[in-house]
Amino acid sequence: MRKLAQSDSDLLSPVAGGGLLDRRLFLKTGLVFGAATLLPSAAAASAQPIDAKPPWMLRPGAPFSNYGEPSPYENKTIRWIAANAKAPANGISWTPLHRLEGIITPSGLHFERHHNGVPQIEPARHRLLIHGLVRKPLFFSIDDLLRYPTVSRLCFIECGGNSNAGWHEQPMQAAAGYFHGLASCSEWSGVPLAVLLEEAGLEPGATWLIAEGADAIAMNVSIPVAKAMDDAILALYQNGERLRPENGYPVRLVLPGWEGVLNVKWLRRLHAAEAPVMARNETAKYTELLPSGKARQFTFVMDAKSLITHPSPGMSLNGAGLYQITGLAWSGGGKVSRVEVSADGGKTWAAAALQEPVLPQCFTRFRIPWRWSGAPAILKSRAFDETGRVQPERSALLAERGSQGYFHYNAIVSWAVAPDGTISHVYA
Amino acid sequence: MRKLAQSDSDLLSPVAGGGLLDRRLFLKTGLVFGAATLLPSAAAASAQPIDAKPPWMLRPGAPFSNYGEPSPYENKTIRWIAANAKAPANGISWTPLHRLEGIITPSGLHFERHHNGVPQIEPARHRLLIHGLVRKPLFFSIDDLLRYPTVSRLCFIECGGNSNAGWHEQPMQAAAGYFHGLASCSEWSGVPLAVLLEEAGLEPGATWLIAEGADAIAMNVSIPVAKAMDDAILALYQNGERLRPENGYPVRLVLPGWEGVLNVKWLRRLHAAEAPVMARNETAKYTELLPSGKARQFTFVMDAKSLITHPSPGMSLNGAGLYQITGLAWSGGGKVSRVEVSADGGKTWAAAALQEPVLPQCFTRFRIPWRWSGAPAILKSRAFDETGRVQPERSALLAERGSQGYFHYNAIVSWAVAPDGTISHVYA
Repeated sequence: MRKLAQSDSDLLSPVAGGGLLDRRLFLKTGLVFGAATLLPSAAAASAQPIDAKPPWMLRPGAPFSNYGEPSPYENKTIRWIAANAKAPANGISWTPLHRLEGIITPSGLHFERHHNGVPQIEPARHRLLIHGLVRKPLFFSIDDLLRYPTVSRLCFIECGGNSNAGWHEQPMQAAAGYFHGLASCSEWSGVPLAVLLEEAGLEPGATWLIAEGADAIAMNVSIPVAKAMDDAILALYQNGERLRPENGYPVRLVLPGWEGVLNVKWLRRLHAAEAPVMARNETAKYTELLPSGKARQFTFVMDAKSLITHPSPGMSLNGAGLYQITGLAWSGGGKVSRVEVSADGGKTWAAAALQEPVLPQCFTRFRIPWRWSGAPAILKSRAFDETGRVQPERSALLAERGSQGYFHYNAIVSWAVAPDGTISHVYA
Repeated sequence: MRKLAQSDSDLLSPVAGGGLLDRRLFLKTGLVFGAATLLPSAAAASAQPIDAKPPWMLRPGAPFSNYGEPSPYENKTIRWIAANAKAPANGISWTPLHRLEGIITPSGLHFERHHNGVPQIEPARHRLLIHGLVRKPLFFSIDDLLRYPTVSRLCFIECGGNSNAGWHEQPMQAAAGYFHGLASCSEWSGVPLAVLLEEAGLEPGATWLIAEGADAIAMNVSIPVAKAMDDAILALYQNGERLRPENGYPVRLVLPGWEGVLNVKWLRRLHAAEAPVMARNETAKYTELLPSGKARQFTFVMDAKSLITHPSPGMSLNGAGLYQITGLAWSGGGKVSRVEVSADGGKTWAAAALQEPVLPQCFTRFRIPWRWSGAPAILKSRAFDETGRVQPERSALLAERGSQGYFHYNAIVSWAVAPDGTISHVYA
């Protein structure tokens, strides 16, 4: 941090339309952001002399706790639940991405997708079976798994149905997280699946693994052996501690960057086979009928995607002035290589700053300063990844995939800023 | 992942005494680890045919939740509390490092050190004052702070009193986390303090900031301005969500790599001054009387340190065979550059694998394979950082700092493995 030198003054010139400023301003002086309405007024300062102690300084505070909880003042930071009225254990809950910062999703706020509820599994009675086309079928208790070598991986998991309100004819008005929050990012730790598969000894014809969970639907899907041998993890830990029940306790299959439904929770069985099993969730569901009449199937890798989380619908800007635009980008293909932001509805774009570390198949936080003139504006972001994937405009996505889609929606998201500072979702 | 080729077979040769194996084995085959006692027996497999469904597969599971909790089967994974019997809001609680994996500490398990309890702060009534030797004294509400540009940082916080049972004459027998767990690692997000200090305008003589918390003791300490301008963060978020009350809600000062007490929670005031305030917690406490009669004071940077978390006291090895040794290393000086492990009490050492990403002032997870012969063994780890810091043997630390120390204990930790597989803490 240092003062803004005379030679830096060109950093205050817009780098794109609508008032976007150079991302390097963040590395410079606070004088820029301290201007105008962002400062508390002198009146506010005099209203509370420093010697007037608030009530919580007048008596000892609460004692220690074995396990902490959020402040009661943050009780709006919750997962939003949308479950089947006739089968309340079937549905989803969204991560409130619009209320979070950084890249970690707290485990208690990781999105959920359950087909038949959350089994309450007693770990001592849980077993994982590896069988089928293997030389040596194996059972593993959780205690067995805990004795294998481990790896850790910060990566996102995203439901194939995330953001699918984007297919609606009219733009849905909802908080950003309750639209795009079937995506979360954690540190997963556990046993590399390859270690166990090599121990079981795959037969030459074994090119698929049928993974099955221990929930009441015995949810199953087919996984290519190549991915299983590459970077799949039998996760026992999420964000340092053992998995939460709703995220697969005691063991979950984690396939970095691949569609959420493949990351089978409560994993009880891996059946090595010559062909996929053609289960419900890879035929009737999680496939996509294209305008041609053909269907996309086994669309494993989640596409490049980004989202401005602040400002976003439900928030309100307090008049013209300097703001920070921030959001999240991710791609199942690898590292996010670049995020661009537009404040003029996509006519011009500027590169945002990416928070280090930028990791493959992981949420990446982006930020860019913006001087809002008070006039109507349309904010967008678009992600690029190291493999060449580019987040498309909505019109391009619909042209390719039709207007009746349901899965794998990754189009650019547009937020309209009204002169009164309110934010709404638009197709633009 | 790939099979172990003939040319790799020398990887199975020990790389140091006591059975330590090459860390690159983790990148090779599972055949190595799958040997011997680590495999479930055929009897175990036949005891539970896969068609016998456990009870939790016979009925729908639990519905969705707005905010998740750990499994009831993990109710031993808690902070261990040691509070003052006459003033129960004064004390500490330890992170159970021996039960965690990866590098993230879940916020609910982040260690606590409270001097007079946890204030229950209403964020709308909280103010931060920057005053003293500044051109423009400023008040900030939390809403004000939330409008400034943000940064995120994965870093550890460690209490200056962590591990101080190491000064005891006899080695304390306790779980690793309840000995060394006044250290935790989170992703902190908030406003760079430099931005606000430049807005307030420090006067030329202002070289210290007196930071004060809004707890009932108004805990205060002195911070050099140079650190405040370098990388200090006014943290509003921990691990994605807003701070927990016991970690400083609604705003905490985070000084990456510096002694925990300086990371003032519930921050209400920064007073710019020409000299430190000589508060209780930088004179009577958090200073160190040396054998010479002089005292160390303002020992800000936490030293290079490491700890084997698995295996560790309270755990038991199940007979001779292959094991993974894993643990955590960290340094306030910068990145951990190397961690070495010994299985023969320090006679020989081998380099452990470091989990990527390795970040400055951040927990770093290390792992190394070990073939235990079943004979008595003494396990140690030692950390090196990029600035040249090396974790010392206990004898060297005591020679320098005396036997009556209390703060900044960072000596090498030794775990003795008995022939029956039990682990104990030893001085060796």
